[in-house]
Amino acid sequence: MSFTNDRFLRALTNQPLDRPPLWMMRQAGRYLPEYLATRERAGSFLNLCKTPELACEVTLQPIARFGFDAAILFSDILTIPDAMGLGLSFNEGEGPRFANPIRTLDAIEQLGIPDPQQELRYVMDAVKLIKHELAASIPLIGFAGSPWTLASYMIEGGGSKDFINSKALLYAQPEAMHRLLDKLTQAVSLYLNAQIDAGVDVVMLFDSWGGMLPTNSFQAFSLATMKKVIDQLKPTVPVIVFTKGGGMWLNDLNNIGATALGIDWQTDLAYARACLPNTCLQGNLDPTVLFTNPRVVRDTTLAMLQAQGANQQYIANLGHGILPKTPLKNVDAFVQTVQEFRY
Amino acid sequence: MSFTNDRFLRALTNQPLDRPPLWMMRQAGRYLPEYLATRERAGSFLNLCKTPELACEVTLQPIARFGFDAAILFSDILTIPDAMGLGLSFNEGEGPRFANPIRTLDAIEQLGIPDPQQELRYVMDAVKLIKHELAASIPLIGFAGSPWTLASYMIEGGGSKDFINSKALLYAQPEAMHRLLDKLTQAVSLYLNAQIDAGVDVVMLFDSWGGMLPTNSFQAFSLATMKKVIDQLKPTVPVIVFTKGGGMWLNDLNNIGATALGIDWQTDLAYARACLPNTCLQGNLDPTVLFTNPRVVRDTTLAMLQAQGANQQYIANLGHGILPKTPLKNVDAFVQTVQEFRY
Repeated sequence: MSFTNDRFLRALTNQPLDRPPLWMMRQAGRYLPEYLATRERAGSFLNLCKTPELACEVTLQPIARFGFDAAILFSDILTIPDAMGLGLSFNEGEGPRFANPIRTLDAIEQLGIPDPQQELRYVMDAVKLIKHELAASIPLIGFAGSPWTLASYMIEGGGSKDFINSKALLYAQPEAMHRLLDKLTQAVSLYLNAQIDAGVDVVMLFDSWGGMLPTNSFQAFSLATMKKVIDQLKPTVPVIVFTKGGGMWLNDLNNIGATALGIDWQTDLAYARACLPNTCLQGNLDPTVLFTNPRVVRDTTLAMLQAQGANQQYIANLGHGILPKTPLKNVDAFVQTVQEFRY
Repeated sequence: MSFTNDRFLRALTNQPLDRPPLWMMRQAGRYLPEYLATRERAGSFLNLCKTPELACEVTLQPIARFGFDAAILFSDILTIPDAMGLGLSFNEGEGPRFANPIRTLDAIEQLGIPDPQQELRYVMDAVKLIKHELAASIPLIGFAGSPWTLASYMIEGGGSKDFINSKALLYAQPEAMHRLLDKLTQAVSLYLNAQIDAGVDVVMLFDSWGGMLPTNSFQAFSLATMKKVIDQLKPTVPVIVFTKGGGMWLNDLNNIGATALGIDWQTDLAYARACLPNTCLQGNLDPTVLFTNPRVVRDTTLAMLQAQGANQQYIANLGHGILPKTPLKNVDAFVQTVQEFRY
């Protein structure tokens, strides 16, 4: 497939570029007034995710405003556990909640693998609609949570500070955790392959809670399952892996078959580039920089672009999702700085 | 000063040992029924900190129960901002709150440096009382928060998830942040030196939020100020530095004059030991391991002791503070495993 603007795929396939491609994690999000308006109309966050026309609408909003070089499917990493029957809800200001968290091997055994064409059909419909609307202008990114990240949400019943339940299960009943992760590996692979069939051009694995594990547990329970997912994906699209808090594990992450690695804001980008001279890197402006002013945003963005160097296997992005209430003028400065940069 | 049990100081000064010394971060804490009873009597957490007799009582409770090789002053890292007039309170289940957070250069300029013998006299009185009660049985650890960690609490007005206010100030007004950190560096140095004068045998800097900074900001704003603190300390006592989330920065942390480094649970202890073969290391059992069962605790503790190797510059500990509701039988298993271990 050829795109009017193919910077994003060129960076992923190591082809010459005028400047780095740019998109932002959570670019369709609460910092955007037009998103908040659609969200209001949708009634709930989950209804927004589950209505393809609305998901398509918010996916395209940041593209229209900022001219990003990639769109990302508007959805949530918890659609899979929701489709498994855990009863997902989002309460204002509280984050996700599962009505039926998973705590026992019995509960794990009873979990079914969602059929992406049935329970998650709304996601595939959204992908098709977005692809149609994008009309080959820019690539579309599909995504899923990593098996460990999904497992920890499913066990905790929502977000967590200390991950006591999920880590205690991992430590005390590793075979139960592996059983859960096996199911999630299968579910995530099927889900991402269905997204690829529906038309996404790149997929991304969000390992949001990989950094909550000690190194050896990360390797055995998150890294290894992400490798299994990647091994099962249709080889036609590039894969981006992002482990938040994974700066100590760049070499591990580079060995699981991903095309590119997301780098978080804690990690020094020049260090990451020196570790991985031949890997496409994505990131890593601290989203809190966008709470300063356009001058600081511009200077920090330029420092990021310079830290990464002349290597064109690079995608400009934030080092984590953009935060609610981020002032738009600072997003403008970030976008403009990258768009005016030249290799 | 010579102690009946000097394992802790022997590990810090690289002298032969029968087994690693052991203590636990937050060992006087909410997991202990006797602590909860004293806390109830005190009326509030802050009153417990501010009443030397009660602070002494809870400091000694875990020593009596577990036979730890070091005691740590019962206090809070936020005593300094409280003494600066920020109006500290602790609301049940919510963590610390400051009535008067700091947001402007003006507010920073108006901050005074607390006199440890006046506003923080209650801490020095507690130290003297604890030292008297310990009667040279084991050493006493004094502590303070790192300047950056205190600054972030003071700016956010309490705990935070994204540290938007403190990081935005750091990025947009670095000179204002440096001014605040200079004051805190002076306050922390005076405070720790006063604790040393009052009798503590070792001091520890808790850089709880160092890991919330990008690498270059960590180096400039947290690491550099911790070095300044250490440079100003009386050279008579060993210094332990603990940066939570600092696994990528072990070499940096090893170069600021600390005697020992605390290692968090994310960081592989064998990796830390390989990086720093000549440094005393402290840590790093994941506190959530203590939510499993005695068998898993024993196995994981033994794996930790083996990962660290035969190097006797090592202090067994957790990789973060012990969590409320930790089952006592698992703490028993942790303690017993270390106490029965032999080099």
